Amino acid sequence: MLTERLKKQIEFILEIDKEKNIRRQNHLTDGARRENDAEHAWHMAIMIYLLKEYADGEFDVAKAMIMALIHDIVEIDAGDTYAYDADNLKTQRDREEKAAERIFGILPKEQKEELKALFEEFEAGESKEAQFARAIDCFQPLLLNNANDGKDWYAHKVKKSQVVHRQRFAKMCAPEIWDESMKIIDRNLRLGSIADD
Amino acid sequence: MLTERLKKQIEFILEIDKEKNIRRQNHLTDGARRENDAEHAWHMAIMIYLLKEYADGEFDVAKAMIMALIHDIVEIDAGDTYAYDADNLKTQRDREEKAAERIFGILPKEQKEELKALFEEFEAGESKEAQFARAIDCFQPLLLNNANDGKDWYAHKVKKSQVVHRQRFAKMCAPEIWDESMKIIDRNLRLGSIADD
Repeated sequence: MLTERLKKQIEFILEIDKEKNIRRQNHLTDGARRENDAEHAWHMAIMIYLLKEYADGEFDVAKAMIMALIHDIVEIDAGDTYAYDADNLKTQRDREEKAAERIFGILPKEQKEELKALFEEFEAGESKEAQFARAIDCFQPLLLNNANDGKDWYAHKVKKSQVVHRQRFAKMCAPEIWDESMKIIDRNLRLGSIADD
Repeated sequence: MLTERLKKQIEFILEIDKEKNIRRQNHLTDGARRENDAEHAWHMAIMIYLLKEYADGEFDVAKAMIMALIHDIVEIDAGDTYAYDADNLKTQRDREEKAAERIFGILPKEQKEELKALFEEFEAGESKEAQFARAIDCFQPLLLNNANDGKDWYAHKVKKSQVVHRQRFAKMCAPEIWDESMKIIDRNLRLGSIADD
């Protein structure tokens, strides 16, 4: 007999398959197509593991990795909100809270509470784990955008101050990553793909 | 100045972006398109975290997760080898060893050694972590195939003994997952999507 518990876990596992169809704004390094949320989260988790040495102080690497892996699950209901879309950003929190309640709610109660808490900790951006995960959440698309010479920044007429602001978690907790981000932004200013303010 | 070390790490991070374009044989739950390796690895890592309670005995969950995340990176050079393609399976190990040497070789030396060792441990399937990760590596596409009524098994005329054999790691280390796998196989035998031997 399949236990009720395993049944709920499998239902959740099948539900999150939909994250593979949530497209982000940024393209892959080769510029051929847009990235999806599952690919982004996979890339982030590996980056957290490989770049952990740049975090200011000790942190729980596995916790930051699981945060990265699950942080976009809410977008199955709430959709991807582009980082530079001011109108959509206003309603983002409310849409994502409802989504977290429904989707994590498929799991057994204590796993629902655990994943919801990890998601909320990531969003709050206060713990060491959340800060490093959020730094990588922004550094990952920065690297991809830079690899295709900033075509998405150019298409969306993104300004320097906006891209710099997005990297604020790296500034807080990972100075070498922040420095590298600033160099990438400067390169794209020179290319004309990022606009000066 | 960008350190030589961070430069290598970023080069590796950009190189593995290609994993998002390696297509697997199995389709997503909705059957609309084939899954890629990055999506599969993301799904696996979350499943390892959520289903860890079913493993026979304690294991290092974070280690199994990182194994899952990196286990298909070699396919960037070696390609995806379909689990039921006997000819390609013969040359798989050799192709994947060369790929591991080149791709992990982009990293700083001790990170190269670490990731190569994790990949080899996964392949050997002897440690608790590797056994559970490999059980999930096969349970994940089993769930996806079952969700679309086994269309890929049907298309490839896959036999019951082949699918049962693939689940052998679950049999070794996760009895509830093994039991559930056998029920899924029976359902697909009844549907006619898996052929009886």
